[in-house]
Amino acid sequence: MIRYSAIGAVGYVCGEVLRMMVAHPEGKLVSVLDSYGVGDKISAHHPALRGFYDQVIQDLTEENVRAAAEESDVVLIQVPSGEVPRWAKIVLDAGKKIIDIGADIRFRDVNVWEKWYGQKHPDPQMTHEAVYCIPEVMRELAKGKSLIANPGCYPTATTLGLMPALKTGHIVENTIIVDAKSGYTGAGRRPALNKILTEAENNFCAYALGGGHRHTPEIEQNIAYLTGKDLMKPETWQFINFQPHLLPQVRGIEVTIYATMDRDYTNDELYAMYSEAYQDEPFVQVYPASQPVQTKWVYGTNFCAMTPTFDKRTHRLIVTSVIDNIGKGAAGQAIQNMNLIMGIPETTGLMFPAMYP
Amino acid sequence: MIRYSAIGAVGYVCGEVLRMMVAHPEGKLVSVLDSYGVGDKISAHHPALRGFYDQVIQDLTEENVRAAAEESDVVLIQVPSGEVPRWAKIVLDAGKKIIDIGADIRFRDVNVWEKWYGQKHPDPQMTHEAVYCIPEVMRELAKGKSLIANPGCYPTATTLGLMPALKTGHIVENTIIVDAKSGYTGAGRRPALNKILTEAENNFCAYALGGGHRHTPEIEQNIAYLTGKDLMKPETWQFINFQPHLLPQVRGIEVTIYATMDRDYTNDELYAMYSEAYQDEPFVQVYPASQPVQTKWVYGTNFCAMTPTFDKRTHRLIVTSVIDNIGKGAAGQAIQNMNLIMGIPETTGLMFPAMYP
Amino acid sequence: MIRYSAIGAVGYVCGEVLRMMVAHPEGKLVSVLDSYGVGDKISAHHPALRGFYDQVIQDLTEENVRAAAEESDVVLIQVPSGEVPRWAKIVLDAGKKIIDIGADIRFRDVNVWEKWYGQKHPDPQMTHEAVYCIPEVMRELAKGKSLIANPGCYPTATTLGLMPALKTGHIVENTIIVDAKSGYTGAGRRPALNKILTEAENNFCAYALGGGHRHTPEIEQNIAYLTGKDLMKPETWQFINFQPHLLPQVRGIEVTIYATMDRDYTNDELYAMYSEAYQDEPFVQVYPASQPVQTKWVYGTNFCAMTPTFDKRTHRLIVTSVIDNIGKGAAGQAIQNMNLIMGIPETTGLMFPAMYP
Amino acid sequence: MIRYSAIGAVGYVCGEVLRMMVAHPEGKLVSVLDSYGVGDKISAHHPALRGFYDQVIQDLTEENVRAAAEESDVVLIQVPSGEVPRWAKIVLDAGKKIIDIGADIRFRDVNVWEKWYGQKHPDPQMTHEAVYCIPEVMRELAKGKSLIANPGCYPTATTLGLMPALKTGHIVENTIIVDAKSGYTGAGRRPALNKILTEAENNFCAYALGGGHRHTPEIEQNIAYLTGKDLMKPETWQFINFQPHLLPQVRGIEVTIYATMDRDYTNDELYAMYSEAYQDEPFVQVYPASQPVQTKWVYGTNFCAMTPTFDKRTHRLIVTSVIDNIGKGAAGQAIQNMNLIMGIPETTGLMFPAMYP
Repeated sequence: MIRYSAIGAVGYVCGEVLRMMVAHPEGKLVSVLDSYGVGDKISAHHPALRGFYDQVIQDLTEENVRAAAEESDVVLIQVPSGEVPRWAKIVLDAGKKIIDIGADIRFRDVNVWEKWYGQKHPDPQMTHEAVYCIPEVMRELAKGKSLIANPGCYPTATTLGLMPALKTGHIVENTIIVDAKSGYTGAGRRPALNKILTEAENNFCAYALGGGHRHTPEIEQNIAYLTGKDLMKPETWQFINFQPHLLPQVRGIEVTIYATMDRDYTNDELYAMYSEAYQDEPFVQVYPASQPVQTKWVYGTNFCAMTPTFDKRTHRLIVTSVIDNIGKGAAGQAIQNMNLIMGIPETTGLMFPAMYP
Repeated sequence: MIRYSAIGAVGYVCGEVLRMMVAHPEGKLVSVLDSYGVGDKISAHHPALRGFYDQVIQDLTEENVRAAAEESDVVLIQVPSGEVPRWAKIVLDAGKKIIDIGADIRFRDVNVWEKWYGQKHPDPQMTHEAVYCIPEVMRELAKGKSLIANPGCYPTATTLGLMPALKTGHIVENTIIVDAKSGYTGAGRRPALNKILTEAENNFCAYALGGGHRHTPEIEQNIAYLTGKDLMKPETWQFINFQPHLLPQVRGIEVTIYATMDRDYTNDELYAMYSEAYQDEPFVQVYPASQPVQTKWVYGTNFCAMTPTFDKRTHRLIVTSVIDNIGKGAAGQAIQNMNLIMGIPETTGLMFPAMYP
Repeated sequence: MIRYSAIGAVGYVCGEVLRMMVAHPEGKLVSVLDSYGVGDKISAHHPALRGFYDQVIQDLTEENVRAAAEESDVVLIQVPSGEVPRWAKIVLDAGKKIIDIGADIRFRDVNVWEKWYGQKHPDPQMTHEAVYCIPEVMRELAKGKSLIANPGCYPTATTLGLMPALKTGHIVENTIIVDAKSGYTGAGRRPALNKILTEAENNFCAYALGGGHRHTPEIEQNIAYLTGKDLMKPETWQFINFQPHLLPQVRGIEVTIYATMDRDYTNDELYAMYSEAYQDEPFVQVYPASQPVQTKWVYGTNFCAMTPTFDKRTHRLIVTSVIDNIGKGAAGQAIQNMNLIMGIPETTGLMFPAMYP
Repeated sequence: MIRYSAIGAVGYVCGEVLRMMVAHPEGKLVSVLDSYGVGDKISAHHPALRGFYDQVIQDLTEENVRAAAEESDVVLIQVPSGEVPRWAKIVLDAGKKIIDIGADIRFRDVNVWEKWYGQKHPDPQMTHEAVYCIPEVMRELAKGKSLIANPGCYPTATTLGLMPALKTGHIVENTIIVDAKSGYTGAGRRPALNKILTEAENNFCAYALGGGHRHTPEIEQNIAYLTGKDLMKPETWQFINFQPHLLPQVRGIEVTIYATMDRDYTNDELYAMYSEAYQDEPFVQVYPASQPVQTKWVYGTNFCAMTPTFDKRTHRLIVTSVIDNIGKGAAGQAIQNMNLIMGIPETTGLMFPAMYP
């Protein structure tokens, strides 16, 4: 049995963790904590969970976190940027494990974080101890570890879509462009004018236009990792363009990845290469060029589906890769990482198909 | 007064032409013809037009086309690929003008058309006589002409979004990538499994993956035109990647254009450059980097709105450009072209704002 | 020429008035006033209006309202409940006309308003002087008047859908049930959790469940008017059930009206009766039973479309009636009323078809 | 272990049965049969099921049905109206059980079926042997039986929403009106013009207007059952109005039920009455008047959620009841019935929460 608690209770990711954990044969929720909604039943904020959990939301205090940590094996944390170390220290001191769903401990070089997140990092040492883990890419690093940085949604879809091609060594440096699209759950649950249905429906736009999105360096770090660069020397990494957009839909991320290669491939070669690379990965599905993947195929799941293609006219790899941003892009991968560090099969509780349509 | 007829009556583009022409002070509809829906009132297929037009759909026969042409000044044609010349000849023989909304006469070199459309061209001579016209780019070519190729939706949004930057001469050859997204009206009105709401809603995917979409050479031809290449020598043109996707919305195209430049720009410089380039163009709106354009801002109109930006880390121009695919991308531009060749102000009947929200 | 001003600038109704007035050959905007967004361009809040209006939003002060009124013929007011009289008095004192889009002056008996709106009415006298006007129902009352109460969206669709049947005298008292559905623009533009796309999309629910919606007595007053009851004696009116729901769409109201009749009709008889009743009404469209009306047929317009039917098994009239809630349900009808009281044809600027699809 | 087969493979209901059965600890799929898609993998039609099932679709022949029945305990059937008996006979002859998802065997009096479905019933005897079963209403009838008529989607939501109030005996005869709304999955998977996203999105309309929908007599039969009428004497039943509408969403049914009662209730009394009536029903959730249920709360599940209220002004009960039309409205209830007749807990494999948002 895995006893777990969640810091950050009312957002979509916590709701999705709790939804998925209903079917997890080992999981047992201890506590949920937040500074918002204190005293409310979980179902007051996650109406679909009515009848599935008895807990009420506890106030996010050091005392309550300590008490929760003591009864838990793992604590999942989702709090605003810069606030993770405060709570993580308490959990680690209690000898328990952490999955951090935010970005505080995702970068090996704390300077990268400080530059892109515009803050002084509250605990650089903690970031050095943390392990960033997309299991399909670097699960070996995470085994037995206690402090896991759960990857961002866009970097997950992009890194998985790039990995087999990157490993060939034939992608030309500085040619990678990632055109990304996300449903509105990726923008969080706080009401704002641009998110209300009347403004968002039947509408589509770019945001963070021109290179400013914070997931850019996270993807660059992953590329550096996959191409053998020193993660502590970001000056040796290559630059990419990562350009996100907002889709008028609830869930789903699609990234279209472009990269020039220094040799040509057929679509069939790429399909074979990708299929082989992921043949032992239960959560990755590779499709041939005739079947561009759709976000709905992975709706509400921990799957990543992708279609790699090649345009010989331009010598460019073009890969489309989809995940559910709060599934594999957040809650699903957090559970997968929890399974991984607790030593049970990664697929535990996660092998269910998408709801379609 | 401009008397006009439409060949192709039941699709979305004809419906939009008729909707927009309600407010056109000069236009007078003569006939609508189609081989489908013959004998039906227009409102049987375009319910919103009830009470606005009396005509019934006439059978698409040579005799009826001839009669319609004789009473019209202009005929708008939208028929399947390869069928335009048959009807166009009748109209031209009657001494009347044509706006062809399809692709039959868009390419100067008929070989380009034959390669990408996979057919023998039925009348290469006609294609040489035709004038392809995005008015903001090449209106001088069209003045007084009788045979106009109305541009494709994606090429319109892309060409307008690229033009000012292309004209600097600083875009590096073969670095242009266009990631395009379109609402479902772009896929036509014929029912198909992938278009029904249950499959399309809350879903997003690429299509024509890896370089095969027919709008690719049309954009390449436009780039060749803007960079002074010989349109009859496609072997001298540069290659681009044009990758389309389907948005779960009714109308709207967004293209995100990436291009490496051999000198750097600030966002402000680009904003000034684009604003100046389009200062006399009533249908083009340029926004600063802080305001990425939204498809809804141009919903149902003949406007094209765009936000140019630059990423100095990668030396790439990133432009987002939006149109309504059946507005400026089809019906609106057809009316603009009709105004142009009939010698009245291009804006006639087209200066109305988008419905928002 | 009609010079007009608008109090209440940033909401959807003002945006729609300004959008529709672009095509109005007589209208000239003087000022827009609000206590929010002061100093902003109109297009800062209504992006689709960029290039169409130069005015900036003026602060909503007595001095500014007086100045605006002096240069205007009509002032359209949309402010929170209970605040109309303060501004209306200034306009009336300046000898100008008012269209109030809210509910402050909709009831002849101020007690009805006070009961349903839960406030003391700030100026009962003003409410007696006001004229409530759905032009198709009571235009004679409004001619030449200065203080017009523009009807609510649901009451407009319902009253028009009921009128011909009510006038037969064969509807059995206390049997009317109105099941109403509205798009989210009906809920205003202020962000709230239940309105964000992620919560609202792919979702449907009732609200104000069990009889509490404020449009109930407005519909009852209209029924009383149509059946010859004394509007100052609400104790003599019949009760209805009016039950609203929220549709996952931007615009559009549909009401399904049920009423027992004391004699039977065929669908054809009803179609003939309704068609005749509205034969001179350019904004009302009647359809036969085989064509249930769709909200999209009237999208963005001032039309009301309806399909009356009869179920002989239950002796019930069943009418479906649709409008655009911010078209005929608010802005369109306000312009129609403005035309009416200014003595120009009601259709001026309003005879344009819906955007479809 | 329950071995099951499915006749009718490519529709949404079969896809949903297979999706839900992934988590069912006892279920084992034997065969899927259809006359369409023969030879295809299941995932060719249900992309989200890739990797979960190995079977290919077998041709729907008598021989194949016999073979499937012999290896199965239960066969779920979904075929066009009137075709059930042909296949059911084979299954029954093999001594196996049937869940029919269509309407062929839902009526005790075959004349009712013949009148509303406009056909001669192919096997009246079979219809007499069948048991119609909403488990929460009449599970006792189904225990141990072999031929189960799975209820329609609308009748399920309506009957559950009415049951507690009907059982009081205080609902006045012939006053029940059901205003129903369904997502597009309720209209099946066959492409049609009115279903494509461009026509259906941002649109809402009634259909089968004026009393003609086939679910009307099914609801009337259920009311007759609950009020002790003789199901073989439809002339003694009361008439209702059941009026359906199409929602621009994928899944979800909401019914708003109106009924006059001969005594008054408070909302609290109704909430208590309904809560008590369903206290032992794991799939029914009752909410107080302040919380009108939302279709999304039961998205993809076997739950039915409802909010009963009372309007004392009109003496009417107003209940809103929601289900997922292909969950509790089809596939979920079919599995619940399968569990029931196979003697395992009804909740087996079905106690999972909705995906939200």
